[in-house]
Amino acid sequence: MKSTYEECLQACRECLEACNVCFDSCLKEDDVKMMVDCIRLDRECADACGYAIQAMTRNSPFVKEICEICATICERCADECGKHDHDHCKRCAEACRKCAEACRNMVA
Amino acid sequence: MKSTYEECLQACRECLEACNVCFDSCLKEDDVKMMVDCIRLDRECADACGYAIQAMTRNSPFVKEICEICATICERCADECGKHDHDHCKRCAEACRKCAEACRNMVA
Amino acid sequence: MKSTYEECLQACRECLEACNVCFDSCLKEDDVKMMVDCIRLDRECADACGYAIQAMTRNSPFVKEICEICATICERCADECGKHDHDHCKRCAEACRKCAEACRNMVA
Amino acid sequence: MKSTYEECLQACRECLEACNVCFDSCLKEDDVKMMVDCIRLDRECADACGYAIQAMTRNSPFVKEICEICATICERCADECGKHDHDHCKRCAEACRKCAEACRNMVA
Repeated sequence: MKSTYEECLQACRECLEACNVCFDSCLKEDDVKMMVDCIRLDRECADACGYAIQAMTRNSPFVKEICEICATICERCADECGKHDHDHCKRCAEACRKCAEACRNMVA
Repeated sequence: MKSTYEECLQACRECLEACNVCFDSCLKEDDVKMMVDCIRLDRECADACGYAIQAMTRNSPFVKEICEICATICERCADECGKHDHDHCKRCAEACRKCAEACRNMVA
Repeated sequence: MKSTYEECLQACRECLEACNVCFDSCLKEDDVKMMVDCIRLDRECADACGYAIQAMTRNSPFVKEICEICATICERCADECGKHDHDHCKRCAEACRKCAEACRNMVA
Repeated sequence: MKSTYEECLQACRECLEACNVCFDSCLKEDDVKMMVDCIRLDRECADACGYAIQAMTRNSPFVKEICEICATICERCADECGKHDHDHCKRCAEACRKCAEACRNMVA
């Protein structure tokens, strides 16, 4: 069974990837005007996950605080991506929700 | 007189800021479809500058390699921003060109 | 007069630099064993400042949360660096305290 | 079979983790004085891998340049870690070598 730490690390890696794939895909969409909040939040969320991954793996004294902010950002990104029907948005929303939950478990 | 290092650090800071301001501003433009390459390169360039700032200030053994890649990315971002008439693009193009030059001086 | 934003951006830049200079200098000290907490916190703090700089300049919707965590990390780094007599530690502690205050002002 | 991209992404994730675990472990060693180059290179390498992960997943136009510099840094970190007998250093050296090779394959 995976530990809370391993679950969270894995979720952050998958969320970072899903957000960046969504960022890249949104920029290629015809209706890019509709995707601007998604583009912005994808970048926010990929950076937050990257920051959390670095913090967790180096045994940072601030893992809880960093995972908490990561969870907040993931939730906001999931809400935004969840509004769109593009496959990359749906996959991103799911990865963000899973990551938010894993980060909340790290904080608990 | 500023040292090559100080010139480069300052140029990277200003370029990071100009790229992120341009990123944010592009996402708010009506003609966002025209700005997609700009949005993408602004993020690339802000991240490269951020990476270079960290490397320079911590006396990284890889400052030359990192400044070289930063210069390459700055030049590409300057070329793209230089195609647009928005003030934030013009300011960004100028900051990128200055940063590319300062990074080339670090490598030399 | 500088705005709260400009004060904070400047303080984060100076703090990132001071932390990385301290990180590099600590690793060169003879008594490196005494500096291990400093080395660890210097990295934590430089990364937090770098993250805050990116967030502020791109007009992140999470500036307050990010500046709050940056302030917390700066305070911890200032406390640790404040225990040492090395010039780089003293300068770092001062930059961290200034940055923590500027970040608190951003949150307020 | 995994693609070159997937191999490289996975190798960068594992290398980032191994470097940060090594960084944290080195700081806890009694003989920390012997580990200073390792500590420095672990940070360099974890940051390079983090940068490469972000670049690859967002389909950066600069993936080749970034993977090339990542390979260079991984090789240097592997050389340093390879000098030490600590388990965390051995594991780190192995992860760095694997990552360097995967990055070279991305560039090819």
